[in-house]
Amino acid sequence: MKTIPLILLGCGGVGRQLIQHIVSCRSLHADQGVRLRVLGVSDSKTLLAVSNVSTAELDDGSLLEICRVKSRGSSFTALAGFGEFQVFTDLEVIRKVLDSAMLLGRSAGLALVDCSASSDTLKVLNQVVDLDCCVVLANKKPLTAALEDYDKLVSNPRCVRYESTVGAGLPVIASLNRIISSGDPINNVVGSLSGTLGYVMSEIEEGKPFSEVVKVAKALGYTEPDPRDDLSGMDVARKGLIVARLLGWRINLDNIKIESLYPEEMAPDKMPLEDFLTTGVSSLDESIKERVEKASQNGNVLRYVCVIEGSRCEVGIQELPRNAPLGRLRGSDNVLQVYSRCYKDQPLVIQGAGAGNDTTAAGVLADILDLQDLFP
Amino acid sequence: MKTIPLILLGCGGVGRQLIQHIVSCRSLHADQGVRLRVLGVSDSKTLLAVSNVSTAELDDGSLLEICRVKSRGSSFTALAGFGEFQVFTDLEVIRKVLDSAMLLGRSAGLALVDCSASSDTLKVLNQVVDLDCCVVLANKKPLTAALEDYDKLVSNPRCVRYESTVGAGLPVIASLNRIISSGDPINNVVGSLSGTLGYVMSEIEEGKPFSEVVKVAKALGYTEPDPRDDLSGMDVARKGLIVARLLGWRINLDNIKIESLYPEEMAPDKMPLEDFLTTGVSSLDESIKERVEKASQNGNVLRYVCVIEGSRCEVGIQELPRNAPLGRLRGSDNVLQVYSRCYKDQPLVIQGAGAGNDTTAAGVLADILDLQDLFP
Repeated sequence: MKTIPLILLGCGGVGRQLIQHIVSCRSLHADQGVRLRVLGVSDSKTLLAVSNVSTAELDDGSLLEICRVKSRGSSFTALAGFGEFQVFTDLEVIRKVLDSAMLLGRSAGLALVDCSASSDTLKVLNQVVDLDCCVVLANKKPLTAALEDYDKLVSNPRCVRYESTVGAGLPVIASLNRIISSGDPINNVVGSLSGTLGYVMSEIEEGKPFSEVVKVAKALGYTEPDPRDDLSGMDVARKGLIVARLLGWRINLDNIKIESLYPEEMAPDKMPLEDFLTTGVSSLDESIKERVEKASQNGNVLRYVCVIEGSRCEVGIQELPRNAPLGRLRGSDNVLQVYSRCYKDQPLVIQGAGAGNDTTAAGVLADILDLQDLFP
Repeated sequence: MKTIPLILLGCGGVGRQLIQHIVSCRSLHADQGVRLRVLGVSDSKTLLAVSNVSTAELDDGSLLEICRVKSRGSSFTALAGFGEFQVFTDLEVIRKVLDSAMLLGRSAGLALVDCSASSDTLKVLNQVVDLDCCVVLANKKPLTAALEDYDKLVSNPRCVRYESTVGAGLPVIASLNRIISSGDPINNVVGSLSGTLGYVMSEIEEGKPFSEVVKVAKALGYTEPDPRDDLSGMDVARKGLIVARLLGWRINLDNIKIESLYPEEMAPDKMPLEDFLTTGVSSLDESIKERVEKASQNGNVLRYVCVIEGSRCEVGIQELPRNAPLGRLRGSDNVLQVYSRCYKDQPLVIQGAGAGNDTTAAGVLADILDLQDLFP
């Protein structure tokens, strides 16, 4: 039986769903000859971890209690005295993670799993990579930091997995890695990589006003609390950067041309959210309607896509044939099209749900299981 | 630098393409920290292999010469004296493979790569698996043998890869494995898994007679020399069985309901190929035309699909909505749709070229590279 010791950073929706998947997959993984041993779970401030990382683990009761407490919005301090774990705060968090990595990295192995959405995890991730630990990321930020940090993070590529950073659980990174390792040169990648923007673009195609679609999307929980976080295109740009760097591109986030769906003067630092939702976004309806109609006259539709081709990496609205895979896309599905020597006339297409805690956490779990050969 | 020692069985189109990929990827793989060391290459009768499998390898010159000789249709004996290798025939072939497996399996490791189309490799594959070697298959036959043989072959699942048996290089098996290991239950798999039958079904939809489409497909090299090998549905059934077994189904080939596109009395053992092509296939035109028209009246199209759902595993013609991913399929692309808990309303869709030596060999090479963590 293989054992994969792991520490989970981030206990939001994805992190909690991952814990639940780990617990509910116990017998499945036992059949596969693998056991996940959870040594610690952190939120943004606190780490709950076992004292003796060489032998102990958080039992399933404690793990599920952690999920319950966090989903109620309580802090980890509500768990004091519940199970056999210690509470670490502030600088102690990093020290406990690094101590564990030093103790286990070169013997039992350790996977540090980042399901946070923080830029702050990069430093500790790079440190544990240096200690021969594995890293699994749902967090896009560490992979989209400066190139020198990225290089350190992926310095041992077999030990770093990040499927759920692009298209949630869709097998995008795994498939690209297969194509790359088989020496099949990738010429062109085009994708619709935001469920939110996919929904918005297919709804405005039906003639609905942009402002109305944005408000409905927000009400349905499809957008971030401030929809501009999605409409800015920055999230798609991060995904594009992750794919481009995987393809070997030596670029940073600011090398990507990003089209925002709102003008600079409506940015979050210049206009309160309420103003944006009441008057700002409505003022964009007319110009977007014109673009939709112009595309329609050409038999085309508008899609918010990421294009990586030649020397071009950009994200923004493109006019595409209604019958192309991207043009046919409806709702919040993601799609990625890859053109290479093997996929020349017709692309390789990967399509499906590209958002949601369940599928994102499933992608993280598949990544962890796929590391098993690296553990003794 | 990791080294993966391997022996290649089968030197037809896929095997030769694999050799060429291996040679042309030398520097790419060196950058990835991996080196493939080819110890031997066999055709159906003969194995060319180095004497000392612990240290020697077939150099790139010899490998390319092997490809040249085989693509001219010559036998390996034409290579006598060319390079630093020995020639093994008959029972010596198996003995050399097993000797290598015994010597390397538990130390340097060994991958036995089966790019043949033979049923005869099963025994040696199962023997090397017992010796802790890895197995990579483009050959469907060993995986579709009796259940007890299958169980032996996949007894150490991490050491057995077979992406290219279904959909050529399309990431079908890798993606299903990810979904399975994440504990996401797969409820339904529907696929168009034959480029040949995909082409036939989309062409007859345009109103072309079945017989004409079959003859054009044969002329274009899309079919086997005897098109009935494709039209029987047996090749699709094998792919369906491989997927069903991966999902945990305990079935054999004869548990699959298979619809043949020609009646029993036109089977290869009852009607010569020439008779089939001149009169047999034409006699089927009318009934197939009627089916196409009936489907069209319902707004549907006919597709030759594999369905794995509930207790049903079957391959045959189905009437499908013109606008479903399978209905939209054109030409020789393959497509697989997977429904699971995570992909519930909309399926996970994987689509692209599902045939061809280049993409099939690329899939085999990606499988080999993906085994690297199992090598010291």
